[in-house]
Amino acid sequence: MAVKWVYSFDEIDAAESAVGGDWDEVRRLLGGKGANLGEMTRLGVPVPPGFTITTEACNAYLQADTTFPEGLWRQVMETLARMEESTGKAFGKPDHPLLVSCRSGAQFSMPGMMDTVLNIGLNDAVVGGMIGLTDDPHFVYDSYRRLVQMFGAVVLGVRDEPFEEVLERYREQRGVSSDTDLSTEDLKAITTEFKAIAERFAGRAFPDDPLEQLRLAIEAVFRSWNGKRAVDYRNAAGIPHDLGTGVNIQTMVFGNMGNDSATGVAMSRNATTGESTLEGDYLINAQGEDVVAGIRVTKPLEELAADMPELYEEFAVVARKLEEHYAEMQDMEFTIEHSKLWFLQTRDGKRTAQAAVRIAVDQATEGLISQRDAVMRVSPAQVDFFLHPQFDAESKQTALAAGALLATGLNVSPGAAVGMAAFDADLAERWAKEEGKKVVMVRPETKPDDVHGMLAAEGILTSRGGRTSHAALVARQFGKPAVVGAESLEIDLATRVLRVDGRRIGEGEWISIDGTTGEVFSGTLDTQTPDLENPWLTTLLGWADEMRDIGVWTNADYPHDAEIARAYGAEGIGLARTEHMFFEPERLPIVRRFIMAETNAERQSALDELLPLQREDFEGLFRAMDGLPVTIRLIDPPLHEFLPSYDELTNELADLKIRIQAAGNLAEIDELLATIEDREHMLARVETLREANPMLGLRGVRLGVVRPALTRMQMRAIIEAACHESRRGVAVRPKVMIPLTGHWGELARQREVLDDEAALVMEEQGHEIAYEVGTMIEIPRAALTADRIAEYAEFFSFGTNDLTQMTYGISRDDAESGFLMTYLHEGLLEANPFATLDRDGVGDLMRIALQRGKATRPDLEAGICGEHGGDPDSIAFCREIGLDYVSCSPPRVPVARLAAAQSAIRAPRRDPQSAA
Amino acid sequence: MAVKWVYSFDEIDAAESAVGGDWDEVRRLLGGKGANLGEMTRLGVPVPPGFTITTEACNAYLQADTTFPEGLWRQVMETLARMEESTGKAFGKPDHPLLVSCRSGAQFSMPGMMDTVLNIGLNDAVVGGMIGLTDDPHFVYDSYRRLVQMFGAVVLGVRDEPFEEVLERYREQRGVSSDTDLSTEDLKAITTEFKAIAERFAGRAFPDDPLEQLRLAIEAVFRSWNGKRAVDYRNAAGIPHDLGTGVNIQTMVFGNMGNDSATGVAMSRNATTGESTLEGDYLINAQGEDVVAGIRVTKPLEELAADMPELYEEFAVVARKLEEHYAEMQDMEFTIEHSKLWFLQTRDGKRTAQAAVRIAVDQATEGLISQRDAVMRVSPAQVDFFLHPQFDAESKQTALAAGALLATGLNVSPGAAVGMAAFDADLAERWAKEEGKKVVMVRPETKPDDVHGMLAAEGILTSRGGRTSHAALVARQFGKPAVVGAESLEIDLATRVLRVDGRRIGEGEWISIDGTTGEVFSGTLDTQTPDLENPWLTTLLGWADEMRDIGVWTNADYPHDAEIARAYGAEGIGLARTEHMFFEPERLPIVRRFIMAETNAERQSALDELLPLQREDFEGLFRAMDGLPVTIRLIDPPLHEFLPSYDELTNELADLKIRIQAAGNLAEIDELLATIEDREHMLARVETLREANPMLGLRGVRLGVVRPALTRMQMRAIIEAACHESRRGVAVRPKVMIPLTGHWGELARQREVLDDEAALVMEEQGHEIAYEVGTMIEIPRAALTADRIAEYAEFFSFGTNDLTQMTYGISRDDAESGFLMTYLHEGLLEANPFATLDRDGVGDLMRIALQRGKATRPDLEAGICGEHGGDPDSIAFCREIGLDYVSCSPPRVPVARLAAAQSAIRAPRRDPQSAA
Repeated sequence: MAVKWVYSFDEIDAAESAVGGDWDEVRRLLGGKGANLGEMTRLGVPVPPGFTITTEACNAYLQADTTFPEGLWRQVMETLARMEESTGKAFGKPDHPLLVSCRSGAQFSMPGMMDTVLNIGLNDAVVGGMIGLTDDPHFVYDSYRRLVQMFGAVVLGVRDEPFEEVLERYREQRGVSSDTDLSTEDLKAITTEFKAIAERFAGRAFPDDPLEQLRLAIEAVFRSWNGKRAVDYRNAAGIPHDLGTGVNIQTMVFGNMGNDSATGVAMSRNATTGESTLEGDYLINAQGEDVVAGIRVTKPLEELAADMPELYEEFAVVARKLEEHYAEMQDMEFTIEHSKLWFLQTRDGKRTAQAAVRIAVDQATEGLISQRDAVMRVSPAQVDFFLHPQFDAESKQTALAAGALLATGLNVSPGAAVGMAAFDADLAERWAKEEGKKVVMVRPETKPDDVHGMLAAEGILTSRGGRTSHAALVARQFGKPAVVGAESLEIDLATRVLRVDGRRIGEGEWISIDGTTGEVFSGTLDTQTPDLENPWLTTLLGWADEMRDIGVWTNADYPHDAEIARAYGAEGIGLARTEHMFFEPERLPIVRRFIMAETNAERQSALDELLPLQREDFEGLFRAMDGLPVTIRLIDPPLHEFLPSYDELTNELADLKIRIQAAGNLAEIDELLATIEDREHMLARVETLREANPMLGLRGVRLGVVRPALTRMQMRAIIEAACHESRRGVAVRPKVMIPLTGHWGELARQREVLDDEAALVMEEQGHEIAYEVGTMIEIPRAALTADRIAEYAEFFSFGTNDLTQMTYGISRDDAESGFLMTYLHEGLLEANPFATLDRDGVGDLMRIALQRGKATRPDLEAGICGEHGGDPDSIAFCREIGLDYVSCSPPRVPVARLAAAQSAIRAPRRDPQSAA
Repeated sequence: MAVKWVYSFDEIDAAESAVGGDWDEVRRLLGGKGANLGEMTRLGVPVPPGFTITTEACNAYLQADTTFPEGLWRQVMETLARMEESTGKAFGKPDHPLLVSCRSGAQFSMPGMMDTVLNIGLNDAVVGGMIGLTDDPHFVYDSYRRLVQMFGAVVLGVRDEPFEEVLERYREQRGVSSDTDLSTEDLKAITTEFKAIAERFAGRAFPDDPLEQLRLAIEAVFRSWNGKRAVDYRNAAGIPHDLGTGVNIQTMVFGNMGNDSATGVAMSRNATTGESTLEGDYLINAQGEDVVAGIRVTKPLEELAADMPELYEEFAVVARKLEEHYAEMQDMEFTIEHSKLWFLQTRDGKRTAQAAVRIAVDQATEGLISQRDAVMRVSPAQVDFFLHPQFDAESKQTALAAGALLATGLNVSPGAAVGMAAFDADLAERWAKEEGKKVVMVRPETKPDDVHGMLAAEGILTSRGGRTSHAALVARQFGKPAVVGAESLEIDLATRVLRVDGRRIGEGEWISIDGTTGEVFSGTLDTQTPDLENPWLTTLLGWADEMRDIGVWTNADYPHDAEIARAYGAEGIGLARTEHMFFEPERLPIVRRFIMAETNAERQSALDELLPLQREDFEGLFRAMDGLPVTIRLIDPPLHEFLPSYDELTNELADLKIRIQAAGNLAEIDELLATIEDREHMLARVETLREANPMLGLRGVRLGVVRPALTRMQMRAIIEAACHESRRGVAVRPKVMIPLTGHWGELARQREVLDDEAALVMEEQGHEIAYEVGTMIEIPRAALTADRIAEYAEFFSFGTNDLTQMTYGISRDDAESGFLMTYLHEGLLEANPFATLDRDGVGDLMRIALQRGKATRPDLEAGICGEHGGDPDSIAFCREIGLDYVSCSPPRVPVARLAAAQSAIRAPRRDPQSAA
């Protein structure tokens, strides 16, 4: 039997049997596009008739030195004859002309191969017939000149420029800007010129014979498989070179054949809301281009029910069938030619985050897909988007058109914010709290004592800093939209003005920032806030919870955050940072007194004042998390962070010394002298505390070892708070966490202090509290010596921010505005290791730590509280290596729940005891 | 048969058979002291007769509720009777009195047990007889009062204070400062008072009966085994509590029995030079105390040959016998009583570094010990000491007595230096080079541009900085004595004065610093410089080289250092730091132009100027190491290190702005304005380059990725230099090393640049050079991903300074003057991880790196070039994990050769391919 090179769309069953019923093999044989057209035809969807030439024919053609294989052209002619018969049209027949398109279609979608050639079959004679049929000579000549141009370019290999020069000349002569504004006569003349160009450049005339047109187009598709761009692409994408491409020949249909014709696009569900209703646009007597180009006003699809009720009904049935078949919401293109409905294309439809969630849940409820499929259908980014207000798309379009875009920075905390620019934290807080104004806080960069202003603001904008700068961390922590590192902005604090490209925004003027994209606009944009209580989201996350096998906890420092996180589904607090509490305005002076103290007595007196304040903090956390674990990390940052900076103090002192020279009276001089003395004292302390590399300096557990009284105060506050709440009936589950352990000896010493103080307090209170002690694993050495450390720790929590910095030897604050961006830009790194966990390096240390830790203590609990805890890819890794939970900022909790479930569906759990 | 509880010293053979011939068991049975006295007796050494009560007797006594076990006292009496017979003396017999000492002696030497009781056997009657025999009533009464006091304190348990009060009262009454100045009558009266005190406080009289004295002393030794201090000590040292202690009873002999008696101490070889001659001091008619107390002028041992020729001859024979038996130079105590020589003690003798080396080599040459033993006998610290000038001990003693000690800082680079204080690098260099003065450079701390002054100075003194501060690193690198972090010194650069404790040392005044101890003296001390060409050291290190199985290379940046290191035995350069060359005064301006450049053209022009200079550097290194590998590390430090510091620039600017206000004419103002502009420009660049944690910032390979032109210039200089020298007949072996690799991609990109530039140069030069490319492993991630990195690296060199900082999360500059010292002081850490490699953490990463690297590239060469490369314990570790070489600063090369040999003798080599 001769080889079968050609399958018409309705021969899909034959193609399937020819390759043994394997759908992947069908795609290999016919290419992806050909297989799909066959699939739709088999479903009974009205697809314009056509056929596919196999990839094997392509390979045979190329191997035979660009000669059609035996029987190919005969099979094409035979199949074409059947098409002519079934459509009642024929190639080159002016009164019933058959026009076809010719497209390439390989197994894998591949840029760099031949584009489409439309309207094959047109020639001067057919044009005349078409004008009779459509009564639209402008359209017919435009189609004709397009065929000549496309054919010239992609089949005959003529460059685009000579064609474009002709068009440009005509546009200039007529004073019009668009080709569609040229007259029919012009188009006719242009077609003639195009033919001349084709002949001159290609050395052969544009063929009038439709069959000749078709044959040459097929050969061009075959040859494009070995085009340079296609070969380069396959090399880069790792696609084999021996697959070959298929060729699809399909009947053209026209929606502009009169008032019984139409064309449109439609979705099988509402792409904005997700409602289960058909949604789309169409135009009577129009081409497909007209619908998308926006030149004519389209009609909503519902009106088709009135215009053409039977066809609408037919459309709805097919749409439903397609959605059921693909088990996905479909985005379809259709054309009605002389009251006959044709489907030109169907594919999975794009949708908003809200629609994605609703459609997935609805389809699962309808039984179209499983709950697992529903969980997989929504991306974590969509859930994230869901939780933050966004700019209204139309409003943003308007702003862009009006030139309101001031700059683009790093999109570090998603969501939209609109407010008056406030250039310092105190003003931001005053305007927001006392005057009820909406404020965007604008600073070159932020510091810990700016937090009150950041909390009061709608959003944060800085001109410096990277993805993990202070501003970015705090913003994400509190779910505040933020754009940082917008370097083109010059923020002049002295004159309270923001300058950019010659424009100036004064304090109090409105700005809008988009933390999802990093855009900064002048003026106000409209925002939309999705509904957090959205029942579909609640359902979806509920399903996710049933599927996931790793806990989702939260990083929360304040009771209010803890409550929000719990509402979002957090199952515990994995990290409560006690130092944030120290920065509050009424506490900072006490903390500074502790640091400046010269005797143990002075130090203890400051600690005594802090004790009741810390205790209240912890009481609130225990209440908010009643019944759930609360992991409290002892103080971590270096002490100098609680003092003014060296630069600040030297500037202030320089200023004071100038003022004293200008002072008017003795009293003023005395006061200035006293201030100078105080500041010089503080400066001396700052100098003592100053470190060349504070990241690697006196912080974390090292502080506790050097100043055990501080550890005792914090432990006392924790246990006193636990006793107090426990007596009131709250189920308290305190977990005390030591930061920055590098050597087991540090932990051993701190444990002694902790256990001793806890015993003292419980004795005083006459109340027992079960507590656990654990440590952060954030220093490479801690991971490597986890077996020794686990002797003193009931739990590990991976601090992957610092662990990444030390394992990679990268200071993120410096690098994220520097060489790290160069690395990412140049493709040296695929991902920012501070955003997505570095599996090879940091991840390997985590595996080692877990394996060694569990060897010592098999029931060791382990989680992650670095920012990676909210990143889907990193969550998947944490599951794979066997962590018990991830802990992330409250707004990331729903994201993490979904990501964890998806990871569980995708990959099996790993036994952390097995070899790393 | 009854248990044998008592062994006289001459029954050592019986004791040995009783425990089956195992010498450890003999020590367990008799205690260490008893076993040794038996050993000496067996050798035929004249030891005063005596016996040992076994540790088993002690245990039986304690178990039986402090009752002597059956037969013990009878055996003591029988042995004593034999002693009386052999010595012709008897207990309580005035004309031939037997006096004995009683000492504890357990298996392990143990503080906290009973001290010695001497002179047991004295009572009023015996005292009379003794006076007749010695004709020295003062000595006899002093001995008697000592017996009563010692017996009262250690046997009867009376506190020391009442005894001391009596002595003090007598001293005051007589107006004398020493007990020996009291009269015989006084001593007699004091003895009476002591007896009364003993009776009053202990409730029992001092026993006149010598047997009673002996029995009580034995019981006291037994009981002291369970004394609190002894139990605490055993708990701390991990010594079992059931060993018990032995008791040694030994005849007292007296060197003050007339002119036929003498006492002295002697060494079997010269302890200062190591010459093979007896060396010692003695006194005729004197007690042992008199020799060591320095009250009487002792005679050198040679004179005994004239005073008592037969006895000197006998002494020499015994000394030789003891040295041969112990195969070690012996330190002996002896007494001659009525022309009879007695050996009281022998032990291994202390010696100087020079003596240690000579003795070990001589003993091996004599066949007394093996060459392996000789290599093991000398400590690396002794070889280190050997290489540095030291203060003459007498001169130092005098200086201390005169109160010349100003301060004690950190002993960071050994050796003694004497010079005039110079408070800046330029002055230090001028004084030293132009005026030929000896200079000690004194600074609060040093910076890279101080190096020329440090090189010119004899030594370096700073008031700030830790063990790895810039000053310490440079000093060790160049073998300059240095004391850093002498915090009590106030160095006032403005008035050029060093102040401490109210004293002041002006610039140009003499100071002396001891880098071996950290002491700082005013004035000049005498120094001794050992002979580097010492033939014994050369021999010893030659033997060491035959025994070691790991290479010793050196870290050398300049040809001169390379030559010295090669003379010291270095087998290659493991690290040549190219940036040191950039700091030289004539190059720094060019480097700064490169950094300040705003265009690539400006940058390239600066590089073009640097190229010939770098090439010359490398030519010199290749020549110096002709035939040996030269590892050149591309530039490592952050660029801002080549600019003035932020603080310096702001201070200078503030100063300039004040000067401009006081400026007298327009020309001056113009000049100042120009300077201000220049400095502000530089300050802006410094601000851009400023990093929060420069250690983890833009340096190492990151610089090369961001500025590949810099890499190209360095590679061009290397290959051009190699071609140049190779054509002149030098065997060049260049190895190009990339610093700070963290990701294989960095290395891959740099390799492309390196290989490309090398090919270009070789093409231009028409000369082929074989070169290797490798990387430092100094970032934890590099170690963890060594399998990928080894794809692009022919060798690894562990940079354990940075690797320790990052693995431990410790910035050494900050920590070594801070919490790390607290950790060491409090015993949380046993060793400073920057001095001795942290095997558990950093070492584990090294093991992992080596294993993974060799998995990819089995012939991967690996060494270490961090400072640990010169530390004996770390060298041992490097051998154990299978490194090919260690590389250390030139002065450490001999130390490393010895340490490597000792490690090879102690431990087997490890196969790096086996599981970590």
